[in-house]
Amino acid sequence: MSEDRVDRRVDTVAETLFREQNRLVTAFEELDGSAFRRTPWQRDAFGRGQVCVLDGGAVLERAAVNVSVVAGTRLPPSITDSAPHLLGQPFRVTGLSMVVHPANPYAPACHANFRFFSSGSDWWFGGGVDLTPCYGFDEDATHFHQTLHDWCARHPAADYAAWKSACDSYFTLPHRDETRGVGGVFFDRVTGSFAELWSCVADGLATILPAYLPILRRRCSLPFTDRERRWQLLRRGRYVEFNLVHDRGTRFGLQTGADIDAVLVSMPPLAAWSYGVVPEPGSPEADLQRFLVPRDWLG
Amino acid sequence: MSEDRVDRRVDTVAETLFREQNRLVTAFEELDGSAFRRTPWQRDAFGRGQVCVLDGGAVLERAAVNVSVVAGTRLPPSITDSAPHLLGQPFRVTGLSMVVHPANPYAPACHANFRFFSSGSDWWFGGGVDLTPCYGFDEDATHFHQTLHDWCARHPAADYAAWKSACDSYFTLPHRDETRGVGGVFFDRVTGSFAELWSCVADGLATILPAYLPILRRRCSLPFTDRERRWQLLRRGRYVEFNLVHDRGTRFGLQTGADIDAVLVSMPPLAAWSYGVVPEPGSPEADLQRFLVPRDWLG
Repeated sequence: MSEDRVDRRVDTVAETLFREQNRLVTAFEELDGSAFRRTPWQRDAFGRGQVCVLDGGAVLERAAVNVSVVAGTRLPPSITDSAPHLLGQPFRVTGLSMVVHPANPYAPACHANFRFFSSGSDWWFGGGVDLTPCYGFDEDATHFHQTLHDWCARHPAADYAAWKSACDSYFTLPHRDETRGVGGVFFDRVTGSFAELWSCVADGLATILPAYLPILRRRCSLPFTDRERRWQLLRRGRYVEFNLVHDRGTRFGLQTGADIDAVLVSMPPLAAWSYGVVPEPGSPEADLQRFLVPRDWLG
Repeated sequence: MSEDRVDRRVDTVAETLFREQNRLVTAFEELDGSAFRRTPWQRDAFGRGQVCVLDGGAVLERAAVNVSVVAGTRLPPSITDSAPHLLGQPFRVTGLSMVVHPANPYAPACHANFRFFSSGSDWWFGGGVDLTPCYGFDEDATHFHQTLHDWCARHPAADYAAWKSACDSYFTLPHRDETRGVGGVFFDRVTGSFAELWSCVADGLATILPAYLPILRRRCSLPFTDRERRWQLLRRGRYVEFNLVHDRGTRFGLQTGADIDAVLVSMPPLAAWSYGVVPEPGSPEADLQRFLVPRDWLG
């Protein structure tokens, strides 16, 4: 395919991502009752985007939905380490990323990202949606995975089993020997029929809210005490560890000289570390460990 | 030199480090009025150590002083990247590391680390002491650097100018285009006369308290409000970014399978991230930027 055609596809995808951003932000504003700050930005040769952030909401301690479409002169090592033939090639990429850190310790954090890369005549999609609870609920994990499974089942280009397993592998803290949360789906460098893949990704964007909102709604008003808040902050420390030590998206952002605040908007608003915290056996905090290993969560 | 002799030196250095640990902990306990938790550990083939942690003290929100002496079967990439001839070699290392995160936002954090590595007949010292304020005070930076300078001046094996400059280079957040703090000294892989170097390092250990305590004492009772606390938590977020993204010591710990809680005991107890925080021009928060560039701090 001609480079021009691939290039035009970046703009087509970007347009949809900006529309989806608005839809997600509106839905979260309705749930929370507070407004996001919307910060559009443009840097001539680099690209443009919009950062939407809600801080200190009643339900959402932090929520961020970012869309950008940027061009680079050289693919950075975080990409080319696994694709040496693209080393130093110019590229364009558009992506939407979302992260929600609820205030209530019983409500899980949710992360989603969809992106479209082009470099010369090469192009690929990547993306994923995953859930990170501080307290585990079987029905939440099952609802989340079942919704993602059903989305994948609608698309020949998708493979729930493979993408679920890739998510478990990717969102892992090797130094803690645990997954970041209950996972979800994750795929990278998927190419093939553009029409099929784009239809699958667009439907994936539409799946974020039905996968997450029912869980958020049933957990966001549960009563909690300092004990649960403290545990939430410690678990958020693990979230920070994953993002800064392992996450390729964050490393890509740090390497491309993007706006650092926008790259790190995925960080939790507040996180804690403590030495030698071991939850009491049989406690709800200890029970979380059961959720931090790869498992079949389908209902 | 024979491998046996190098090996015995590891034990000699370790003994002194355990003694210094006790001295530092005692001094901080006297200042704070609270006791450290002391957790000795031993893992047969791996080694032994002691983690000393104070959490939630009146002056010290967190302080940790760790000593360990461990053996490994293969030097990890965080070391051999810059010394390929040691790739996969067994090694022994003993080190003391200290980190203090005061409760008062006007009191700077302080970090110190001294270590002795041996691999076959190769051996070297590394170490450093550095200061990270949330609010800048010229007299603090000057006192700190002058004290470190005077220590170096007492030892032919030391080189304040080079070590100060290495500290500025090492403790940098490239993605933020700022140093972690006002620096100090940093040296790595220094070898030569063992007697001279060990005398220098032992004196360096004795220099931590005179460099830091006078600053801590004059800042730890200054009145502050939520505004300063909030700023402190945001600055601690940068500290976390440095430790997890750049710090070789932390990466070494994560790669060697050491006790993760002990490796991450350098993390601040609580840290925050926020989007688009720009201190008001002329404010004390904005003034900090003046301290986050390499400067000559000698009085």
